[in-house]
Amino acid sequence: MKIHGKPYRTVWTAEDGESVEIIDQTRLPFAVEIVRLETLEAAARAIEMMQVRGAPCIGATAAYGMVLGLREDPSDAGLARAGARLARTRPTAVNLAWAIEEISAAVAGEPPGERARLALEKAEAICEADIEVSKGIGRHGLALIEDIARRKQGPVNILTHCNAGWLATVDLGTATAPIYLAHDKGVDVHVWVDETRPRNQGAALTAFELGAHGVPHTVVVDNAGGHLMQKGMVDLCIVGTDRTARNGDVANKIGTYLKALAAHDNGVPFYVALPHTTIDWSIEDGVRDIPIETRSPEEVTRMTGRLASGEVATVDIVAEGSPAANYAFDVTPSRLITGLITERGIASASEEGLLGLYPERRAAR
Amino acid sequence: MKIHGKPYRTVWTAEDGESVEIIDQTRLPFAVEIVRLETLEAAARAIEMMQVRGAPCIGATAAYGMVLGLREDPSDAGLARAGARLARTRPTAVNLAWAIEEISAAVAGEPPGERARLALEKAEAICEADIEVSKGIGRHGLALIEDIARRKQGPVNILTHCNAGWLATVDLGTATAPIYLAHDKGVDVHVWVDETRPRNQGAALTAFELGAHGVPHTVVVDNAGGHLMQKGMVDLCIVGTDRTARNGDVANKIGTYLKALAAHDNGVPFYVALPHTTIDWSIEDGVRDIPIETRSPEEVTRMTGRLASGEVATVDIVAEGSPAANYAFDVTPSRLITGLITERGIASASEEGLLGLYPERRAAR
Repeated sequence: MKIHGKPYRTVWTAEDGESVEIIDQTRLPFAVEIVRLETLEAAARAIEMMQVRGAPCIGATAAYGMVLGLREDPSDAGLARAGARLARTRPTAVNLAWAIEEISAAVAGEPPGERARLALEKAEAICEADIEVSKGIGRHGLALIEDIARRKQGPVNILTHCNAGWLATVDLGTATAPIYLAHDKGVDVHVWVDETRPRNQGAALTAFELGAHGVPHTVVVDNAGGHLMQKGMVDLCIVGTDRTARNGDVANKIGTYLKALAAHDNGVPFYVALPHTTIDWSIEDGVRDIPIETRSPEEVTRMTGRLASGEVATVDIVAEGSPAANYAFDVTPSRLITGLITERGIASASEEGLLGLYPERRAAR
Repeated sequence: MKIHGKPYRTVWTAEDGESVEIIDQTRLPFAVEIVRLETLEAAARAIEMMQVRGAPCIGATAAYGMVLGLREDPSDAGLARAGARLARTRPTAVNLAWAIEEISAAVAGEPPGERARLALEKAEAICEADIEVSKGIGRHGLALIEDIARRKQGPVNILTHCNAGWLATVDLGTATAPIYLAHDKGVDVHVWVDETRPRNQGAALTAFELGAHGVPHTVVVDNAGGHLMQKGMVDLCIVGTDRTARNGDVANKIGTYLKALAAHDNGVPFYVALPHTTIDWSIEDGVRDIPIETRSPEEVTRMTGRLASGEVATVDIVAEGSPAANYAFDVTPSRLITGLITERGIASASEEGLLGLYPERRAAR
C-alpha cells in the first residue's frame, strides 16, 4: 500500500539483489525507516525485536532470513542452523515454521552452490503468494461489507484489534484487505481501531496505515469495544490471527477474546481473517493447546511516544515497584466466531468448516 | 490507609479549620502532593481535573466545596450557586448530587451566619459515614474471600479494574476494602490490577496504594483479563461503580463490561462493591438510561509517565492525524453480576435484591 503516495511492501529484495530490506515497524508511526538486513542474525533479530511483526510478514522475513543464512553457510549444517535460529525467534506464529520448511524443502538435495539462489527465488515466490492470499481474503470479506452497506444508512462501522493490516503481511493485509477493497470501491466504511496495549499496534500501526491510505477511522482504548457494541456503533468485527487451531479456535493478540465476547453478547458478527498458513492442523483444541507467549513486563510498565519536542521517548507509567505480567496472546473459542475469512472463502469456525475449504487436509489427518 | 508509614485520608479539613486539603491524585504515582483548596472554584476544578476521583471521594470533596462556597456567600443565592457549580463538574457520579443535597438540606432555613459552620460539620460527618460504609463493604466482602481461601491452595487471586481503592473514597476503599481486611487478617491474597486505559488509574493508583500497603499484586493490560480467567488464574473479580441503577445494572469505568463478560464465560464470580450513595433509584434500566460521559480524545492519544531522568512527561502515542474517541464509562448489565456488596450485605444485582437491603426505598418508588 502507499505511504505518502509511494507504494511499499513490508519486506523486499534490496536493489543489490542480495540483501533484504524491511520497514522498521518499531519506529512507526513516528518515522518511516528502511532497514537493510545482510545476515541471518540480523533477520532473526528483526523478528525478535518486532521490527517486522504479523504472522505473514514474519513468515516472509523468515524466508529471506533463510536466504541470508544459506549465503553465509550453504551446507546441510548451515541450513539446519539457519532454520533453528529463526525458529526460536517467536514461539506462537505458525507461519514462521512453515516458511522455514518451505525454503528447506526447496533447497534440500540441491548443490550447496545453488542453494542461496534457489532460496531467494522461493522467498520471492512466498511474498507473491502472500499478496494473492490477501487479495483472496479481501474479495471474500468485501462481500460481507457490501451486504451490510446495502442494509443500512451511513458508514459501515468495522472494529479491529491490533494490526492485521498490510504492515502485518507483505501487502494489503488480512483483516484490512476487505476494508481497503471496500474503501477503494467507494463503499462508505469507518474503522474503530483498538489501541491494543501493551505494544499499541492499533494506535501506532493500524491507525497509521489507514490514515496513510485515507480510510476514515477512530482510535479507541481497548476497553471501549464493549460499550460501542452495546450501543449499536459496530456493524462488524474483523480481526487477524497468529494461529488457528483445527477446531476453529483462534490465537490472536491479547484482548481479542474480550471483543469476541462482546460481539457475541450484542449480536455483532465477529470474523477472523486468515491466510491458510496460520492454520495449525496439528492443534485439535486451540484453547487447551496453543501455547501463549509471555513477553517482557517492561512492555506493560513503559510506553513509548513522541514528546512535544518531536523526540521519541519512553516513560514509566506504573507505580514504582509494582510487578507486571505480559501475556501476548489469548485464544478465542470458535463458538464466539461467526466465520473465518480465508483466501478460498468463508468457513464456519470448526474443523468441518475448515476442511470444507481445505479438503486436501482430510487425508492428512 | 498508609503511605510510607503515615496514615492519610483523601480529603480532610486543613489545620486552619477553614480550608480543605486533598491528595492531588493526578500527580500519583510519581509524587504524593497535598493541595489546599480555599475557594468553591478550587474545589470544583479539583473535581473536574480529577485531582480527586472515585464516586465517594468526589462526594466528600463536593461537600467540602459547599462549605467553601457558603463561606464566600452564605445567602440562599450563594447556596444555589455553589450547588449548581459543583453539580456540573462530572455528569455521571451520583454521589456528587447526593452530597450537594445533603449539605443544602443541613443549612437551608438556618441563618446565613451559621451556614458555613453547619456545612463543615455535615461535610465531616459525611466523611466519617463514608469510612463506616467502606468498613461495612469490607466485612461482607471479606467473607467471600475467606470462603475461597478455605477451598483452595495458594493465594486467592482477585481481579480489579480501575481504582475503587481508598484513594477513590475517604479511606479504605470500596472494591479494595475486602482485600485490605483480608490481607491485614493474614489471608493470602494476590490482586490482578487492570491498568485501566485511558487514564491508567489501575497502574498508577491501585498499584500504588496496594504496594504502599504491602498487598501482593501484578499489573496487567486491560486486554489480559479474559486470558487470565480462561486459564483459571482469577478466583474472584471485585470492581467499584460510579452509578448503580435500580435494576442492578452498573456504570463503572470503561472496560468493566468486558471483564464481566469474561467472568461470566468462565464461571468466575463477579462482584461490584458499592456504597448506597451510588445507587440511583430513579434509573430503572441502567444499560438504557445511564448517560455516558465522553472526555477529551487527548486522554487516548497521549500518555503521561516518568522519563528516565525522573521528570514527568506526556507523549503522543497515536499516529499523527488519527482521531480518537473517549467514552469514560460503560454499563454492565445485571445479568453478568454475581452480587452487589454493600455496607448492609450482599444483594443479587436486581431491584428485588437492592430493595431487600434497602426496604425503606420500597415506599419511595
